[in-house]
Amino acid sequence: MTINKGEDFMGQISDLDTAQVLVHALPYIQKYYNKTIVVKYGGNAMINEKLKDAVMTDLVLLSLVGIRVVLVHGGGPEISDMLKKIGKESRFVNGLRYTDKETMDVVQMVLAGKVNKDLVRHLQQNGGQSIGMCGLDGGMIKATKLCETGADLGFVGDVTAVDPKPIEDALENGYVPVIATMAVGENGEVYNINADTAAARIASAIGAEKLMLLTDIRGLLRDKDDEETLIPVVNVSEVPNLVRQGIISGGMIPKVDCCVEAVRRGVTSASIIDGRTPHSILVEMFSDEGTGTMFQ
Amino acid sequence: MTINKGEDFMGQISDLDTAQVLVHALPYIQKYYNKTIVVKYGGNAMINEKLKDAVMTDLVLLSLVGIRVVLVHGGGPEISDMLKKIGKESRFVNGLRYTDKETMDVVQMVLAGKVNKDLVRHLQQNGGQSIGMCGLDGGMIKATKLCETGADLGFVGDVTAVDPKPIEDALENGYVPVIATMAVGENGEVYNINADTAAARIASAIGAEKLMLLTDIRGLLRDKDDEETLIPVVNVSEVPNLVRQGIISGGMIPKVDCCVEAVRRGVTSASIIDGRTPHSILVEMFSDEGTGTMFQ
Amino acid sequence: MTINKGEDFMGQISDLDTAQVLVHALPYIQKYYNKTIVVKYGGNAMINEKLKDAVMTDLVLLSLVGIRVVLVHGGGPEISDMLKKIGKESRFVNGLRYTDKETMDVVQMVLAGKVNKDLVRHLQQNGGQSIGMCGLDGGMIKATKLCETGADLGFVGDVTAVDPKPIEDALENGYVPVIATMAVGENGEVYNINADTAAARIASAIGAEKLMLLTDIRGLLRDKDDEETLIPVVNVSEVPNLVRQGIISGGMIPKVDCCVEAVRRGVTSASIIDGRTPHSILVEMFSDEGTGTMFQ
Amino acid sequence: MTINKGEDFMGQISDLDTAQVLVHALPYIQKYYNKTIVVKYGGNAMINEKLKDAVMTDLVLLSLVGIRVVLVHGGGPEISDMLKKIGKESRFVNGLRYTDKETMDVVQMVLAGKVNKDLVRHLQQNGGQSIGMCGLDGGMIKATKLCETGADLGFVGDVTAVDPKPIEDALENGYVPVIATMAVGENGEVYNINADTAAARIASAIGAEKLMLLTDIRGLLRDKDDEETLIPVVNVSEVPNLVRQGIISGGMIPKVDCCVEAVRRGVTSASIIDGRTPHSILVEMFSDEGTGTMFQ
Amino acid sequence: MTINKGEDFMGQISDLDTAQVLVHALPYIQKYYNKTIVVKYGGNAMINEKLKDAVMTDLVLLSLVGIRVVLVHGGGPEISDMLKKIGKESRFVNGLRYTDKETMDVVQMVLAGKVNKDLVRHLQQNGGQSIGMCGLDGGMIKATKLCETGADLGFVGDVTAVDPKPIEDALENGYVPVIATMAVGENGEVYNINADTAAARIASAIGAEKLMLLTDIRGLLRDKDDEETLIPVVNVSEVPNLVRQGIISGGMIPKVDCCVEAVRRGVTSASIIDGRTPHSILVEMFSDEGTGTMFQ
Amino acid sequence: MTINKGEDFMGQISDLDTAQVLVHALPYIQKYYNKTIVVKYGGNAMINEKLKDAVMTDLVLLSLVGIRVVLVHGGGPEISDMLKKIGKESRFVNGLRYTDKETMDVVQMVLAGKVNKDLVRHLQQNGGQSIGMCGLDGGMIKATKLCETGADLGFVGDVTAVDPKPIEDALENGYVPVIATMAVGENGEVYNINADTAAARIASAIGAEKLMLLTDIRGLLRDKDDEETLIPVVNVSEVPNLVRQGIISGGMIPKVDCCVEAVRRGVTSASIIDGRTPHSILVEMFSDEGTGTMFQ
Repeated sequence: MTINKGEDFMGQISDLDTAQVLVHALPYIQKYYNKTIVVKYGGNAMINEKLKDAVMTDLVLLSLVGIRVVLVHGGGPEISDMLKKIGKESRFVNGLRYTDKETMDVVQMVLAGKVNKDLVRHLQQNGGQSIGMCGLDGGMIKATKLCETGADLGFVGDVTAVDPKPIEDALENGYVPVIATMAVGENGEVYNINADTAAARIASAIGAEKLMLLTDIRGLLRDKDDEETLIPVVNVSEVPNLVRQGIISGGMIPKVDCCVEAVRRGVTSASIIDGRTPHSILVEMFSDEGTGTMFQ
Repeated sequence: MTINKGEDFMGQISDLDTAQVLVHALPYIQKYYNKTIVVKYGGNAMINEKLKDAVMTDLVLLSLVGIRVVLVHGGGPEISDMLKKIGKESRFVNGLRYTDKETMDVVQMVLAGKVNKDLVRHLQQNGGQSIGMCGLDGGMIKATKLCETGADLGFVGDVTAVDPKPIEDALENGYVPVIATMAVGENGEVYNINADTAAARIASAIGAEKLMLLTDIRGLLRDKDDEETLIPVVNVSEVPNLVRQGIISGGMIPKVDCCVEAVRRGVTSASIIDGRTPHSILVEMFSDEGTGTMFQ
Repeated sequence: MTINKGEDFMGQISDLDTAQVLVHALPYIQKYYNKTIVVKYGGNAMINEKLKDAVMTDLVLLSLVGIRVVLVHGGGPEISDMLKKIGKESRFVNGLRYTDKETMDVVQMVLAGKVNKDLVRHLQQNGGQSIGMCGLDGGMIKATKLCETGADLGFVGDVTAVDPKPIEDALENGYVPVIATMAVGENGEVYNINADTAAARIASAIGAEKLMLLTDIRGLLRDKDDEETLIPVVNVSEVPNLVRQGIISGGMIPKVDCCVEAVRRGVTSASIIDGRTPHSILVEMFSDEGTGTMFQ
Repeated sequence: MTINKGEDFMGQISDLDTAQVLVHALPYIQKYYNKTIVVKYGGNAMINEKLKDAVMTDLVLLSLVGIRVVLVHGGGPEISDMLKKIGKESRFVNGLRYTDKETMDVVQMVLAGKVNKDLVRHLQQNGGQSIGMCGLDGGMIKATKLCETGADLGFVGDVTAVDPKPIEDALENGYVPVIATMAVGENGEVYNINADTAAARIASAIGAEKLMLLTDIRGLLRDKDDEETLIPVVNVSEVPNLVRQGIISGGMIPKVDCCVEAVRRGVTSASIIDGRTPHSILVEMFSDEGTGTMFQ
Repeated sequence: MTINKGEDFMGQISDLDTAQVLVHALPYIQKYYNKTIVVKYGGNAMINEKLKDAVMTDLVLLSLVGIRVVLVHGGGPEISDMLKKIGKESRFVNGLRYTDKETMDVVQMVLAGKVNKDLVRHLQQNGGQSIGMCGLDGGMIKATKLCETGADLGFVGDVTAVDPKPIEDALENGYVPVIATMAVGENGEVYNINADTAAARIASAIGAEKLMLLTDIRGLLRDKDDEETLIPVVNVSEVPNLVRQGIISGGMIPKVDCCVEAVRRGVTSASIIDGRTPHSILVEMFSDEGTGTMFQ
Repeated sequence: MTINKGEDFMGQISDLDTAQVLVHALPYIQKYYNKTIVVKYGGNAMINEKLKDAVMTDLVLLSLVGIRVVLVHGGGPEISDMLKKIGKESRFVNGLRYTDKETMDVVQMVLAGKVNKDLVRHLQQNGGQSIGMCGLDGGMIKATKLCETGADLGFVGDVTAVDPKPIEDALENGYVPVIATMAVGENGEVYNINADTAAARIASAIGAEKLMLLTDIRGLLRDKDDEETLIPVVNVSEVPNLVRQGIISGGMIPKVDCCVEAVRRGVTSASIIDGRTPHSILVEMFSDEGTGTMFQ
């Protein structure tokens, strides 16, 4: 087994520093031992190869020290690429992809066949043991057609239930489950679903300790131009107020909503972290300060 | 749960006949109880929707009476369709698809993302519990580049090892594993592999009792124009002689080779059965005569 | 192992019919998998050798497909024969056998030594695994002297408790328990008890899914001369009304009472079926219509 | 639970003596812990009620301190009584009961229905947990027709195999199995078999530590008129010599043969003990000297 | 393994008496099977070598017949000896040893290093399996500084909590845990604690069936000069009255308080027994009368 | 639980460095997961409080990440102190302490009562779970009198056998076993044994992956005055040559012999490391270079 030791590191750390770090990480390794962590993977961290390698290494590390890791992913850009390749235009309604039957087929192929299995392969190459799944396996994710006023989105689904059994089986058998976010309807039809929402529902269904959304931002900032104003911890009851103040706005709103949903459904904490920094997952897990913004 | 009861049946069977059939099937249900059966799925049975439904129903039935069922599939026609869709021509060398990197990506997407998950969905719709996998999951199927004299086939692989753990885990957890036949190389590269060969190797690796190849022929015929001359059972030692006599020839040779390979590697019997007859799997399993040709 | 394949069958059933029957039986096999079924055996089905063979085959079949089968039996005719042989007259009070100590000894010998072990032997001969027991084994059935107004019946007992452990042990170990209905009193005295009542109490004590009383009638008929007026399903709350209407009368009353008692004590359903039809057990278990009358 | 404390004792033992006895019995209780002991029960100890109570108490005691006890019995006198009752004469050929079909039925009824269940009841009354079985249960004891020169004995069988599973299941479930010695033939016919031989074969099949035959003699005596000349221990290799010397003779020969057979088939020791002394089983188990003659 | 068979016995007991004792002990062996017994060891029985051997033999015996035995001890005399040896005077305040840091070190050394390990060695020599522990192991016994009015006792502790895990682990693994009574404070400081109190708290924490305090008196006497006036059983509600009557007085008061405390905290019974009589533990366990005074 | 985070560290390490260290330590944590490590503790690391804390922290850390840690200790200086306190002179013969009965008692008290339990307490204070034991517990270490030519050393023993059960039980139950090195003879006499040798034998008996001897030297040096000439790895076959060259000499010889002994008896590697550097255990475990000299 070869573990990718993050070639993005240059310096050398003394044995004493090594010892000190291990000593500090100790309570966290213990705290999360045998707990389940759901990582929603997306954005830059999914495209940049170096960042991807760092994420894979982090997940393998977490699983090696006894943490149960679940990786949930979407795959918007690769879907658009493929649609373009077959000469089909992507069409968005209210920011959501209009998904006709042919599009849904492409979504399924790309998510469950390409992105999912590539992630599995990367994890295996980095020394992990991983199994890829999608919402159809074991009938894991159930959905109905999303009904929003004024727009028919085609096969875009609204998650109604998550059966944690296939995920728990994989964890019990020693694998990192990698989950492509699709769902199955009552009559066997397949739905495209939002990956953040799916991650939140999965985290709740398997009783996860923590949900982490990898994003392309630093976290919640009081002053959006000053990263020093990062808000490290938010109680979910404060969220409406932060929305009113405009601190949570735009593309952040649905992400925060997922975090709130997860916490409301029993997940101990949900964090929005910066996928542009290598190993931000490890830092979030193994330091008091963490990184990004944690909802609890 | 709704089980598709094969609407292709017309007549009504008396309760007494029901009783009689169950009485006759009894020793076979007992014989295969907790044994593992690998079904290689392909040909017409995979395209015709009615036949597909019958196959799905059969697999669910087998699993419900305590038989451990593994479904292995390829997906040649759908791959060709997709390649055509993106404007890429399928190229064959000695009957094998030349597989460059772009083709391999399409193969992966179609096999692991489309065909595989559609089968999973069909099994679930028919009342089964099923998990889809490919050779990359858990590093299950390992291969090296296929080296045949005089031709570079690109990413076409030669299976070197099968790790049965992910399949056995799925069986233990109560699922029908559905396996897309791809493999992973030493450096993480992905290979296209022959589905029949993969099925034979998987059957051997998991200690299967029986391998069944669903084909578009009746079985081995002494006189290829007379189905009445079907050879029901062949001992693997007789195969060379049958080849010399021309009874095994053409496209039958690789199929028979797979059966011989499976038996040589410890599978009790391997059958070539006719996927064009509905429920041929059930008939093969639960009658003295079986159907098609069985190698042992 | 040789399974008696019911030589009373004459015809040949096509492979397709075989497949169809199995497809139809599927939901029932699944429904009863690992559930417990108590069959009270008596009447013609116990005397006619062909019917007996069919019953034995049915029980073996049920156990082979994972149903937990318990066989409960009495043995009135054989007891009377034996009493006659030793020159002792059978005496009945209100339809119940007067049981002095000598009679009780004969009852015990015949039930636990002859009828019980012969059934065990028949099941074994038909390919089953079976253990014979009586109410004395493990102190399984406890009773007190039956106190009915105006008549001393001697050692006729009233069941006070059933300890399911010996039965469950036998089921766990893979056997069909065959139970002779006698009971033990507080001071070790042995009681003769009604086999139907015992079956109902046993079914309740082991949490059975179904109780089946094999009888010599077709079931409950609205018009007792027309089998077409069979009432297939009766809710136990309707019983008093049916008695008032005279539809339940005579010898049917105690049988129906047993069914009601079983359902009231938690058994999901209790059926009165016709032991004169071969394989009526299978038909009752594996068809929508069933046979006879089911109380629920 | 009420344990019969052997009312045949008169005196009172001091607490200190109590302590001393327990201290001395300690190594034996430890030695036999979780080991299996087969007791062949017969003779006076089976007829005299006081002796019977003492035997029952002993068996319960042994099982309570963690010894796995199996009780094997015949029932000659009760069989003869019953045959007489139905007006059938007992006929003996070379000391073996000629067993026609009708006789065999009586043997089965009396052994498996009367003697066996009465013993079960007695053990239960004495605080034990017991299950009665015969050689037909689970097809436990297999036999063929005994072929001795010059005489047809009818359904007298020669034991060919013992399946220990039903006995071991009962022991695992916490019961004292009580076994009536009959056997089943290849075609389901029932055979009468010798109880001593059956006990020896059972002891061997379940890997017993000890076989004890309860008899009406003191043991092997050098001078048959002087009990002081008891031979406490005999190595099985010495037996032929003892026969030549006439020390083993007459009715002792088959009993000794059973002991030798048991030891040859792996039982550590086999003892002939005096069933006329109350609690001789306990004394044999829990003292250095034992009682009677032990073959090893 | 050599078991010390109590050479203090002189006489010979007949086989029949042996049988009778075993018959009588039977219900007790059964009653205490797999139950936990805590013995507080002290006084003469700890100094006199013969009595010590008898105690060790008793404990080994109890554990061999399936009783879970825990031995708790103090070691006052040996501590005083050691203090004298290093030239340090023992100082008592209100009957409790004043314990400065140096004294505490000696207490720890003598209790956990000398007395404890010597007991372990004795048990092993007598055929037992034993592990020595003290209140520090696994942080088993927690205490705070004892605060009694008017006197500083130094490192004398008041038990606040007992974690039964280390004791239960040792019992599960087949050992007799031998426990030296010290405790650990919140900041890691070590406390000297009263052995009787510790035994009561341990008995409660592990859900013991019985606590036995070995003392140098016969038990509670109505007339302290007449051992015939022994009170065999006391309900804890009667204790205040017995104190008022002066029947419980002086050094008996704290011992009785321990018994009451144990019973109040769920131990079924607690006995004060006479350690000067050999094998009083066995007599207490295995006779109706017991010995000494039992609180319940 | 409060973990002592090594206040001897001054600086602050960046989150990125934290991540890097964890990434590098990953293969080692995985490598040693569920493996057993025996640490022989002595020298300065046992006296200096800061070093002691660092050692305790290291052991807790190792156990928290799933490594099975066993701590073996001697206690020479504390024994000499105590002997002096009671006015008894330490006498050494050929560098070994002459051990009369009185000395042995002191050795036992100090090792098993003082040093051992203090270590247990320190581990608990640092957040570990620990159980103290000595060679007498469960009869774990057996010895005979050490017979060396020309000198009687009294109760100095030569280890003959180590029973790993008590150690493995403690590990299974989640504790760090702390072992005081004494042994028990055939007749129950207690022996003083060499702690290094005991550690080597224990490491072998429990199938340890690694033995570490904490010493007051840097390791094996080619030039004893130049720490830069440290020999990091030595194959045990090279040892005789190194002795001839004088590189292994004096007090190093017995330490190296222990390492060789451990490796010969199946321990994968044995290291002599410098207990004067804080956290040298962690550095030895979690870096490629390690520290000190490793024998394999």
